[in-house]
Amino acid sequence: MTARPGNAHQARLLRLLRDGGPSSRAQLGDEVELSRSKLAVEVDRLLETGLVVADGLAASRGGRRSHNIRLAPGLRFLGIDIGATSVDVAVTNPELEILGHLNHPMDVREGPVAVFEQVLTMVGKLKDSGVAEGFDGAGIGVPGPVRFPEGVPVAPPIMPGWDGFPVREALSQELGCPVMVDNDVNLMAMGEQQAGVARHVPDFICVKIGTGIGCGIVAGGTVHRGTTGSAGDIGHIQVEPRGRQCACGNRGCLEAYFGGSALARDAESAAREGRSAELASRLETSGRLTGADVAAAAAAGDGASLDLIRDGGARTGQVIAGLVSFFNPGLVVIGGGVTGLGHTLLASIRTQIYHQSLPLATGNLPIVLGELGQVAGVTGAARLISDHLFSPA
Amino acid sequence: MTARPGNAHQARLLRLLRDGGPSSRAQLGDEVELSRSKLAVEVDRLLETGLVVADGLAASRGGRRSHNIRLAPGLRFLGIDIGATSVDVAVTNPELEILGHLNHPMDVREGPVAVFEQVLTMVGKLKDSGVAEGFDGAGIGVPGPVRFPEGVPVAPPIMPGWDGFPVREALSQELGCPVMVDNDVNLMAMGEQQAGVARHVPDFICVKIGTGIGCGIVAGGTVHRGTTGSAGDIGHIQVEPRGRQCACGNRGCLEAYFGGSALARDAESAAREGRSAELASRLETSGRLTGADVAAAAAAGDGASLDLIRDGGARTGQVIAGLVSFFNPGLVVIGGGVTGLGHTLLASIRTQIYHQSLPLATGNLPIVLGELGQVAGVTGAARLISDHLFSPA
Repeated sequence: MTARPGNAHQARLLRLLRDGGPSSRAQLGDEVELSRSKLAVEVDRLLETGLVVADGLAASRGGRRSHNIRLAPGLRFLGIDIGATSVDVAVTNPELEILGHLNHPMDVREGPVAVFEQVLTMVGKLKDSGVAEGFDGAGIGVPGPVRFPEGVPVAPPIMPGWDGFPVREALSQELGCPVMVDNDVNLMAMGEQQAGVARHVPDFICVKIGTGIGCGIVAGGTVHRGTTGSAGDIGHIQVEPRGRQCACGNRGCLEAYFGGSALARDAESAAREGRSAELASRLETSGRLTGADVAAAAAAGDGASLDLIRDGGARTGQVIAGLVSFFNPGLVVIGGGVTGLGHTLLASIRTQIYHQSLPLATGNLPIVLGELGQVAGVTGAARLISDHLFSPA
Repeated sequence: MTARPGNAHQARLLRLLRDGGPSSRAQLGDEVELSRSKLAVEVDRLLETGLVVADGLAASRGGRRSHNIRLAPGLRFLGIDIGATSVDVAVTNPELEILGHLNHPMDVREGPVAVFEQVLTMVGKLKDSGVAEGFDGAGIGVPGPVRFPEGVPVAPPIMPGWDGFPVREALSQELGCPVMVDNDVNLMAMGEQQAGVARHVPDFICVKIGTGIGCGIVAGGTVHRGTTGSAGDIGHIQVEPRGRQCACGNRGCLEAYFGGSALARDAESAAREGRSAELASRLETSGRLTGADVAAAAAAGDGASLDLIRDGGARTGQVIAGLVSFFNPGLVVIGGGVTGLGHTLLASIRTQIYHQSLPLATGNLPIVLGELGQVAGVTGAARLISDHLFSPA
């Protein structure tokens, strides 16, 4: 795909077709404020570029029946989501529906060269499966702050070796298509906005609880990235003055109390100190514990595990309550690996937020788990690159 | 003024003339992406409406010299800022420069009828002074959350009697011009954005420390009001788990520790408990203490007063540090009555933020006092109504 929309109207039409699927001219006309003749001009130009094609007869609304139009069905986007401990790669159609998806465990600390090698292997497998021959664009998320315009990670705490690495440029060369890079948490938010629980919600926050804890912020339908691309970096908000030592050097940060790392550490302590036979037996078996162990132990009724989840939820809820007072979102989405902890965690977070924020901000505030699970990030990545390509050049 | 811009281009031109003053067509052409002929069409239409007028010859850039154009110099906006304990009213010219400004002490708890009577008296005085005969529009700020589209306060905690009062409609009838209503803190932020320290900063927060503590949020150049208009309501963010009882019913809120009310209460305790001879003597003289007494005592070197300011600054800084991590603003502005506490307060807030937020968010983050003082709110109010009038009808 080399063509790009020639103006803002064409860009808007492309996004409408992406999000709404094949549409009649009459349907598009209802959405955009263009006269019938101006709409016809813009649609004709898009047909000329090959970005959209005619597609079957539209339902009659009286008068001569016209063809539906749709995005060129051969368009393919690649969504790549690099997490702390795994990589997801997916191929989508132009409506951002996932045609193929692969997941592979991988430690992001192995560095960009090893991770990209893995990504390209996965891309090759997806091509071999026949879902795509080439790609019109790719979005990629990394677990750290990104200088967005350049597509370069900056000072990412859990990604040594990635600082300043030209992710966008390097990947674009390898794949031979345009690439956009963002923080993994922003992409999760965009994924839920595209195809998940946050569709049609203009202002929401999406809290990702994985190894660490971060937050995607959507304001007026657009991701808010902040002045240096570090917006949503909530893992080091203080929850306890003079509290626990955190890896960042401060005391009392949220991540010193919760997130995959803190949970694993606390679970191992509980096992070693004889507070949980269930966790102790799991530790003996595997030599280490993870959030998944805590989830499983809690599901089996282990009191110590339930306490860890409830306590972590309350700490997280305490931080989110402050953000709700500040930002007054219309929705709070909780996602990330730790959502395996499920409704015990959600209940604890909810209780804290409803208790601590003022009624005006929480009166109609849904606090829900994300819907897309492991494909939230790759869906958001596909949205990111399609937003870019469906903008005036 | 009944004319409104006919499209987004005309709206943009009006705002450019408001913010940049009289301009040549060439200068305007540099700012808007319009061909010379299209620009001429839009300017001509604006001249026809009477919203803009020709104004002297522009400097030559080669070729035939043309006239500057400017907003009709007779346009007058009214800015009204209702605080917890005083009312400010100002008249501006079309460039939002203040032509006349009055301040009157008034307790907002006297209710909308008494407050509006006061406002109208002040408006009358300003008219009598000759700065305006009538008004093309008015903006008004109130110290509580506002349902923005309707211009109605909702459940304002410090404004009994205002809940649901149709401020916009009532004032519009009295004044005979369009009115827009917003939270006082949002207007302070818009004032600093218009004519103060936040000019040209797309993403910033403006923390107002008055009787209570609130925060205006500007994202992408636009005020973020939140889903129910309560965004920026940071006075009840928890700073101390299991901390002091707050008037809102929760424990450990920021306002339980700082803001005009908390400061007065803590100063009176210090006076009564013999911790400050300076405050005790002031209390004996006037029967009560305010933030201004603490400021004066601190300036005279009173240790207890300095401690109160430093401690309050640290608590406030703790909350702002969290907001900085979350929102990653390009600037933090501190304003409101308590800024009489000046640089001791600012230093304490700064120390806490720089200590507690991550370097990526604070590396280039200025934390400064507002520039406009008592006219920030009325300037923001004039911007609010002119933004509304300088939008397509």
